[in-house]
Amino acid sequence: MSDFVRNSWYLAAWAKEVPDAGFLARRLLDEPWLIMHTAEGWVMLADGCPHRFVPLSRGRRVGDTIACGYHGLRFGADGSCVFSPFGKAVPPETRVAARPLVERHGGLWFWPGDGALADPALIPDFSFIDDVRDARDHLVMNVNYELISDNLLDLSHAEFLHTETFGVNGALFEFGKQTVETGPDGALWNKWDMDGSRPPEWAVPMVGVGGAVDQWLHIRWHAPASLALFIGMARAGTERHEPLMPQMANPHILTPSSATESHYFFTREHGEEAAAMARKVFLEEDEPMIRAQQDAMAGRDFWSMRPVILPSDAAAIRARRRLMQMRREEAATDDTGALLEGTSGQQ
Amino acid sequence: MSDFVRNSWYLAAWAKEVPDAGFLARRLLDEPWLIMHTAEGWVMLADGCPHRFVPLSRGRRVGDTIACGYHGLRFGADGSCVFSPFGKAVPPETRVAARPLVERHGGLWFWPGDGALADPALIPDFSFIDDVRDARDHLVMNVNYELISDNLLDLSHAEFLHTETFGVNGALFEFGKQTVETGPDGALWNKWDMDGSRPPEWAVPMVGVGGAVDQWLHIRWHAPASLALFIGMARAGTERHEPLMPQMANPHILTPSSATESHYFFTREHGEEAAAMARKVFLEEDEPMIRAQQDAMAGRDFWSMRPVILPSDAAAIRARRRLMQMRREEAATDDTGALLEGTSGQQ
Amino acid sequence: MSDFVRNSWYLAAWAKEVPDAGFLARRLLDEPWLIMHTAEGWVMLADGCPHRFVPLSRGRRVGDTIACGYHGLRFGADGSCVFSPFGKAVPPETRVAARPLVERHGGLWFWPGDGALADPALIPDFSFIDDVRDARDHLVMNVNYELISDNLLDLSHAEFLHTETFGVNGALFEFGKQTVETGPDGALWNKWDMDGSRPPEWAVPMVGVGGAVDQWLHIRWHAPASLALFIGMARAGTERHEPLMPQMANPHILTPSSATESHYFFTREHGEEAAAMARKVFLEEDEPMIRAQQDAMAGRDFWSMRPVILPSDAAAIRARRRLMQMRREEAATDDTGALLEGTSGQQ
Repeated sequence: MSDFVRNSWYLAAWAKEVPDAGFLARRLLDEPWLIMHTAEGWVMLADGCPHRFVPLSRGRRVGDTIACGYHGLRFGADGSCVFSPFGKAVPPETRVAARPLVERHGGLWFWPGDGALADPALIPDFSFIDDVRDARDHLVMNVNYELISDNLLDLSHAEFLHTETFGVNGALFEFGKQTVETGPDGALWNKWDMDGSRPPEWAVPMVGVGGAVDQWLHIRWHAPASLALFIGMARAGTERHEPLMPQMANPHILTPSSATESHYFFTREHGEEAAAMARKVFLEEDEPMIRAQQDAMAGRDFWSMRPVILPSDAAAIRARRRLMQMRREEAATDDTGALLEGTSGQQ
Repeated sequence: MSDFVRNSWYLAAWAKEVPDAGFLARRLLDEPWLIMHTAEGWVMLADGCPHRFVPLSRGRRVGDTIACGYHGLRFGADGSCVFSPFGKAVPPETRVAARPLVERHGGLWFWPGDGALADPALIPDFSFIDDVRDARDHLVMNVNYELISDNLLDLSHAEFLHTETFGVNGALFEFGKQTVETGPDGALWNKWDMDGSRPPEWAVPMVGVGGAVDQWLHIRWHAPASLALFIGMARAGTERHEPLMPQMANPHILTPSSATESHYFFTREHGEEAAAMARKVFLEEDEPMIRAQQDAMAGRDFWSMRPVILPSDAAAIRARRRLMQMRREEAATDDTGALLEGTSGQQ
Repeated sequence: MSDFVRNSWYLAAWAKEVPDAGFLARRLLDEPWLIMHTAEGWVMLADGCPHRFVPLSRGRRVGDTIACGYHGLRFGADGSCVFSPFGKAVPPETRVAARPLVERHGGLWFWPGDGALADPALIPDFSFIDDVRDARDHLVMNVNYELISDNLLDLSHAEFLHTETFGVNGALFEFGKQTVETGPDGALWNKWDMDGSRPPEWAVPMVGVGGAVDQWLHIRWHAPASLALFIGMARAGTERHEPLMPQMANPHILTPSSATESHYFFTREHGEEAAAMARKVFLEEDEPMIRAQQDAMAGRDFWSMRPVILPSDAAAIRARRRLMQMRREEAATDDTGALLEGTSGQQ
């Protein structure tokens, strides 16, 4: 069974990551891909020449085509070979796989599986970042994407792992009520609500000494691993109608690079300081722990290790089960649209 | 068949290696363990949280418990979960394996196999270091423990490998008589006796020009790989009653870290110079040669490579056969007490 | 099936690479070998002691023997053990494999397979370097030898990969006529002839403005991977009787070190500048591209990846098929003279 669900939308890149007159090469679902913007729109091509298999990204862009750096074959937006330096017609199989790429919310989404099923309406709604002036950022974590999902779906970890950056709140354990539910769009939610809890230091002046606040920490998951985090605080007992801060809404969108490496797409405030802070949280606090988990698992299946299940794991467990179910269905139908058997670039 | 005998005592650490208020994390027999000293004595716990498998050693010690650094579960001396930040009772399987740890001769000995068989009387006798003021030291060699045993059980290698540090004696080849025997405690001995041999330079004044000495080089092996080396010299013909130097007695105790890495416990004189000298001998002279042997074997079984057997190999061959026999018996009974199937930390 | 043809001559080293009073250790066809020059001629021994498998090259040369650095056994030119420090007779199997080594064209050629078939008349003819004053050079490429052969057998790659060092000629694509043929000695030739082509800048004064030249780029291949490159230019229409430059003739002889690493033997002008230039072409231009190809193949068989075949691949494809056929025949007869089963050094 594949490590990945294929009939699903994945974020391949933020649009701004792709150089205007060049291309972006990126490993996604353990396959090499090349992304470029042409006169006709976004293009995503398998990054492997069907002649000698070398990455086309070792070549160069010539107009709206890519010229292989080894023997000069050129491929156009639909993946077909549009030029051979040897002049003669090339065999018809001289083409690379191409994928539609949909721009949405500043990101480029692709569907690695059966193109006939690729309905853009299924792209998870991240419209909350459409008008946000936050910086769109990307990093790579050397861990499996499901382990990162687990980490995000149980936010109680912040009380232990992120004490240096976020401090200790404690309200979660003292006042937290956890709700796990499925939204109308199929999204899975893990909601921690801390009603009537002690405010953090900075909010005391706003509610008065002894005053209480309603806090919430909600995370939303779309399969395979596109998450959104919502954090808010309101004057207690106002049904959240008197917020004490604007609700924070952040994408945490994961796309597997391989079974043990993941792309992590997120937003943050602009500037070097915020960039450094995000890297500290993700790469110095989260990643070493998740990597230690991955190392301890040593390639074994999660369930085969009979993990202890705590109530706080409810959402993560549901997400894992749903993914497992999706992978099983794809394995059964064998209708995954996986094109890259044989060569990594040949259709 | 396992790489390791499990129903046997192994040295896990020198007691002094374990920080008073902290813990020592160490890989032993390819499993992660955590050792700490509590009010109730020595504690050895599997170093992997049963919840998400991360090493408990990434967390912190809280009193006589260990708190997981990921989600805050705490484990006590018997391996049971004594606290959950989520407040509710945890599932009964929320526990890590614990092992009795016996302090003897300044070392901490553990029995990875069936606890019912763990008789402390079976710990090899290293009482000769009890009152020795030598420093107890430890290093890691990137080679399999049986290859190190082979190396120690045939001390003739010193005449080729350690010429720079120990010089060339030559007496072993000229006067040496080799005896391989089994002691009453099951220990295997390889004894080189060089009776009536030429004294080394420094001993000439003691025996006079032309005088002879009796030298001996005895090594003792207890399965799986706890060795002791005895070196002495006496006036010839005195039945060793007139020693020309105090007999040297040194432990060379090996505990596999993995199939290709070993802990090496030894004693040496105090001070930086002696520490550096020991590392030169072990890590610059022995290890590169043994590592070259391991690389040449490329994962193949020793016997499958049909090694040439020399008379000097008699003890090493006997030790290998005994270990093989022990592993076969354990494989047959399947009663090894190996607890770590599934997770690396769950009982 | 083996990665390598065994019943064939391979270049092991240039004679000048072997130190007079010492030896050269080199991995060839994934086996360790040791080469030395003795009073009786060239000697090639398996570089692994049959006692404990360590490389003999970790020991030292004693006269015309090699002394193991671990326990002192010494081996003579025929691979037999000629001395044991333990004095007693050693078991008859105490010997290492030996191979005849033939000096030809400044190189040392060996036959890894069945010695009975090793006819020196089968060594490919490189006599064109016998009287050449060029430097004989050697480097290691971290790629499979067949991929390097492919690269050399389709020289059109130079127009894309070597533009910085060789410039762009263009004549190959505009005027080139390709001929693939087999010579009387079984050699495979890929000949690009560019008759009546525009001369390069430097040759214009020799043929006059508007004058034409006949250029040729011929490469010769002997199995498994001994290639020779011939480059020439003559006044057009003179049947090559009026050369405009001396024909260049260069060996490109490949010997697999392992399935993913190859020795590359070549000649070049003397001096540091020519040495650096050769390394730039081979290691900075060719190797990264071939390595990218090897990485993309990820251990898969070339044919299983269904490569697109272009007319320019005709020679490379024929060479691959011939090698495949040779390997199949050797696998069928099982008469490959492979001696190193079991130990890496034992006969």
